[in-house]
Amino acid sequence: MKPYLFASALLFAISTSLCVAQTGSTAILEDFKPSTLNQPGQEYPQVNSQRYARFRIIAPAADSVRVSLGLGGRGGTKLAKATDGSWMGTTAGPMDEGFHYYNVNIDGGKFNDPGALNFYGSTRWESGIEIPAHDQDFYALKDVPHGNVQLILFPSKSTNTSRRAFVYTPPGYFENPKTRYPVLYLQHGWGEDETAWSNQGRANLIMDNLIAAGKIKPFIIVMTYGMTNDVKMGGLRNFDIKPFQTVLLDELIPYVDKTFRTIAKQEKRAMGGLSMGGMETKTITMNMPEVFSHYALLSGGTYAPADIKDKSKVKLVFLSCGSKERPDGVKNATTALKEAGFNAVSYISEGTAHEFQTWRRSLYQLAPLLFKD
Amino acid sequence: MKPYLFASALLFAISTSLCVAQTGSTAILEDFKPSTLNQPGQEYPQVNSQRYARFRIIAPAADSVRVSLGLGGRGGTKLAKATDGSWMGTTAGPMDEGFHYYNVNIDGGKFNDPGALNFYGSTRWESGIEIPAHDQDFYALKDVPHGNVQLILFPSKSTNTSRRAFVYTPPGYFENPKTRYPVLYLQHGWGEDETAWSNQGRANLIMDNLIAAGKIKPFIIVMTYGMTNDVKMGGLRNFDIKPFQTVLLDELIPYVDKTFRTIAKQEKRAMGGLSMGGMETKTITMNMPEVFSHYALLSGGTYAPADIKDKSKVKLVFLSCGSKERPDGVKNATTALKEAGFNAVSYISEGTAHEFQTWRRSLYQLAPLLFKD
Repeated sequence: MKPYLFASALLFAISTSLCVAQTGSTAILEDFKPSTLNQPGQEYPQVNSQRYARFRIIAPAADSVRVSLGLGGRGGTKLAKATDGSWMGTTAGPMDEGFHYYNVNIDGGKFNDPGALNFYGSTRWESGIEIPAHDQDFYALKDVPHGNVQLILFPSKSTNTSRRAFVYTPPGYFENPKTRYPVLYLQHGWGEDETAWSNQGRANLIMDNLIAAGKIKPFIIVMTYGMTNDVKMGGLRNFDIKPFQTVLLDELIPYVDKTFRTIAKQEKRAMGGLSMGGMETKTITMNMPEVFSHYALLSGGTYAPADIKDKSKVKLVFLSCGSKERPDGVKNATTALKEAGFNAVSYISEGTAHEFQTWRRSLYQLAPLLFKD
Repeated sequence: MKPYLFASALLFAISTSLCVAQTGSTAILEDFKPSTLNQPGQEYPQVNSQRYARFRIIAPAADSVRVSLGLGGRGGTKLAKATDGSWMGTTAGPMDEGFHYYNVNIDGGKFNDPGALNFYGSTRWESGIEIPAHDQDFYALKDVPHGNVQLILFPSKSTNTSRRAFVYTPPGYFENPKTRYPVLYLQHGWGEDETAWSNQGRANLIMDNLIAAGKIKPFIIVMTYGMTNDVKMGGLRNFDIKPFQTVLLDELIPYVDKTFRTIAKQEKRAMGGLSMGGMETKTITMNMPEVFSHYALLSGGTYAPADIKDKSKVKLVFLSCGSKERPDGVKNATTALKEAGFNAVSYISEGTAHEFQTWRRSLYQLAPLLFKD
């Protein structure tokens, strides 16, 4: 931790002038704008063109305010009290492009930033901030035909309740009532839920834009909750795939195939997931090779050739991660799969880590490879 | 304000025994359970069988923690510091049945309760708590066929963007691809948005249950954002209906009629709204009598017979409010409409005020009256 960096950042945080000043070796540009994920009308948090984030929290009588986001592992960004009773602070360095979760520690308690929208992660709704990315066009809301994201409640005997899933139906789904579509089952990561791929991942906008550009043939995406057996799970090492596998294969897929105009065949059904969702994808595709034909692990491990018993059943293995994760593992696994005769593709997201920008980009790379014949 | 009530409540809040004790004239039963709107795995806030709410907030170094919910106009419920560093407190009296917004004041700053789910109200995402109601069965999640809630993004030239709406399609919509349905356009109140009727109002579950019980013929509900001209609006007296009327009539309705299997006729199109949404309903139905045939104002004002120029175009006028609002105004207006020859129906929600339990019940009463011929 470099205390002088925090101090310098705070100095500019409470300045209202538009100057450029030195902090260590970096000049912080005073072109901060509200994050696009702020609540309506909220000015903070803000981001500048160098990808620094700036926070402002109102808590006049607090003794200590700290934001979990920032550089360095220890404690994130400490805010300083301004003369108007607000607390302000700027990250000590640039953030990775894309989406980040964070929370605010007020006098020892963990709260959300009242300025920011909330996103489900770490088994709770957390604050979110968006750092503009050089390639943000592919997940932007544009004036193109839009598909729908449908909340469905499907019956689940194994868990004795109606369970929730979201189903992306592509533009044209309603206008072309005889067309049937392939389906990608797409899973979130640990501590997230079935809202993550639409809210944080913008999966629907990525699909809308790819379809409008003629880069993919339309397909359906189904997203449901993958931590079926225990909300906290007590660590992934105790994870039991069976409850989720039962919900997915015996309950959700039959409901989707009955309710939506799918092509209900193994060749036209894919499964993918990020992080823990990749682990689930790997386990379920290995257990049940007759259900899915396209496999995608996004920052979610790799397959060895020996993991896949019947090569003829697999049309695609897609492996990805951020360049700040373990790209060599992904690349080497892909090489080994190719040498064993699999149609394997790897993708490394430059400059990103175990975070949603990696997974947005991965979906954008994956989608054109799916259901090609 | 009765300070002794706060003090008594706090005494029990920090007690862990399951005793029953006197506070003023009320014995607080120690049968508190987590609110059904808590975040996954969260124990607090809690509610007991007498409709008292109890809060627990972790903020060890805070000097003052207060919850906006409670009895008495001034300051809600003040929490007291327990020995474990948490802050606890119980409302000084029972809450109305149903849904309530609230927030937590930590050392002068307004935050959400990390234990509770968030709901959009007052132009921000706020904490929500659910007080079990004697009639909660009609909006419960049951093992019945469920309709979908579809997020749509529709093009809006007048506001130069893609706008969001939610569309409830009833169970059977996909299985019966030739059936066409009437449509209710249903608006939220001031400071809320298009998520309110599903999240707070449970409109989809109310419909699912009514349809499963054979009490109504299925119809579609469309919910969009009604504060088109300004998110904060600067007070309702400056409200201009034109931007919203343009979005609704010239953009949303044509998109819905093109995309969904509606019966695109005035006789099969209703408009309703709560609070500000009632004001919008009244203004738009008066401006454009050729668009809607069924009008519903839920805690949202009344019509005088002279407000409606062509009686032959109106199939139903529904007026409702809570018994703690101004029920005489609703009843008298309904009587006057009936005397003038209108099919007018009033409904008063017993024991509730200007809050969502009134509007859930109103929708439950309204739905069977719509599209009867």
